[in-house]
Amino acid sequence: MNGAASLTLRRRFTHWCEERARYGDTDRQGHVNNAVFATFCESGRVGLFHSEDAPFAPPGSEFVIVRLTLDFRAEIHWRDRIEIGTVVETLGRASFTLGQGLFRGETCVATAESVLVLMDLASRRATPLPPVLRARLAALANPPLPDMPGGAA
Amino acid sequence: MNGAASLTLRRRFTHWCEERARYGDTDRQGHVNNAVFATFCESGRVGLFHSEDAPFAPPGSEFVIVRLTLDFRAEIHWRDRIEIGTVVETLGRASFTLGQGLFRGETCVATAESVLVLMDLASRRATPLPPVLRARLAALANPPLPDMPGGAA
Amino acid sequence: MNGAASLTLRRRFTHWCEERARYGDTDRQGHVNNAVFATFCESGRVGLFHSEDAPFAPPGSEFVIVRLTLDFRAEIHWRDRIEIGTVVETLGRASFTLGQGLFRGETCVATAESVLVLMDLASRRATPLPPVLRARLAALANPPLPDMPGGAA
Amino acid sequence: MNGAASLTLRRRFTHWCEERARYGDTDRQGHVNNAVFATFCESGRVGLFHSEDAPFAPPGSEFVIVRLTLDFRAEIHWRDRIEIGTVVETLGRASFTLGQGLFRGETCVATAESVLVLMDLASRRATPLPPVLRARLAALANPPLPDMPGGAA
Repeated sequence: MNGAASLTLRRRFTHWCEERARYGDTDRQGHVNNAVFATFCESGRVGLFHSEDAPFAPPGSEFVIVRLTLDFRAEIHWRDRIEIGTVVETLGRASFTLGQGLFRGETCVATAESVLVLMDLASRRATPLPPVLRARLAALANPPLPDMPGGAA
Repeated sequence: MNGAASLTLRRRFTHWCEERARYGDTDRQGHVNNAVFATFCESGRVGLFHSEDAPFAPPGSEFVIVRLTLDFRAEIHWRDRIEIGTVVETLGRASFTLGQGLFRGETCVATAESVLVLMDLASRRATPLPPVLRARLAALANPPLPDMPGGAA
Repeated sequence: MNGAASLTLRRRFTHWCEERARYGDTDRQGHVNNAVFATFCESGRVGLFHSEDAPFAPPGSEFVIVRLTLDFRAEIHWRDRIEIGTVVETLGRASFTLGQGLFRGETCVATAESVLVLMDLASRRATPLPPVLRARLAALANPPLPDMPGGAA
Repeated sequence: MNGAASLTLRRRFTHWCEERARYGDTDRQGHVNNAVFATFCESGRVGLFHSEDAPFAPPGSEFVIVRLTLDFRAEIHWRDRIEIGTVVETLGRASFTLGQGLFRGETCVATAESVLVLMDLASRRATPLPPVLRARLAALANPPLPDMPGGAA
């Protein structure tokens, strides 16, 4: 893993999407509420998973987030345009890690790491990442991960 | 219909539920954001529809809101305990009207009227309210509505 | 007033802004939750009030919504791009009415009318719309409203 | 620090509050959206900071969250009653760490750790925790932390 520090650099990321802070995202402290940062991270994740014609999760399965670590680095204000960069960091047997950076222009307002598991919808249990999915995720690392059986983690 | 005015009176309502205003419900004006009033009205509606053992919507159908009118009468603040009263106002062929009042203690902070349609999930179209549903809704009017075929609206 | 029907026509509006439906805006029915429609209406309102260099509300005052009527005409789904048109409909002494239309492409997914009051922040009471504000609002009607003292409503 | 594992035990916590999952908290996956877990953690934090007559943050300052780590352990569903336990874990010079557990009955649905900083509102910079605040926070650890100058971290 490359550590949270490097997630403050735009060049680290392989997928981008964008959100704009709504009036309703603010709270009584005047800035965007901290839970909305988690919403923006979700926008980046699901944006990546549906960024191509075929969704990333195989039929009968879906991704489940099991851990989110969010580092708040600056406030977001109403009407800010936030770009969300996402990169694959590590690939495990049935899980993988994403790194994210939230940017207002050149300013990194937050970084995040999330651990996702592929869940079989029938059994509601974790299921190994199939080779096609591994290859697609590996290509979204930076630099791309070797996509060997048992390669990472 | 009994008009929005009477919706400011607690005795008007036949179903009650409760919400507490969260910190994250506030906005930069310092009070609870106006869209959260719509969320509280929804809590009252779905609370009523699931207040008994058998849900109100017959299998293969669900309620869809087609109109919401909200009168904002006072601010809600973080940590306020809001009681939401709901009453059936009118019954139509495939739709019905609910009246609602949001209360902080004796203070009515908002009233609302909503029009709901029973939608068939297969056709995605409005479908007539079946007799059992009509009877259950009629019993939640105040005073109870006559439950005759073609009775109301 | 021009009635809710005409609010389904894009040419009716004098101010536009845009939102994109987030994953977190959806609910268990699979579509965007009804309260988010109220959030999108708010985005249009506050977007209009801050669309020019000088905010519309005079110093020491702010706009308060006292009534919102929302007609739901179609579902919004995750990732839909929604354009929000807003027009001034009527001008009163201390209040005014906005009409709004929410569009996905050419499809009108909702219309709304809202009544807003100018509130004096010190007294927390309604205060008359000053002439400069009346003129700015009148120019955002379609066709523009006559901006005479006592002209409308 | 006592580690995330022990945060799954109810006896670990010194402050409790409660939330109920709203219909509007769900998303298209049918369960409560992950960002709402962050909202529930916030409810616990601000509930603790305002649980006594005098708020914890001294005048002219407020708490700012700089890091949130959330471990998702089970789904939350509409209408679930969630109890949120909070405990002070470590005290630093200008910051402190809270541990949290979210429970549905005896089931721990999530644990969280958050790092908070006391921010001076005038300078918008971190400011040392004054002795009175240190003592109040130390009393909310389990077991209570020694409250000596320079005692912890």
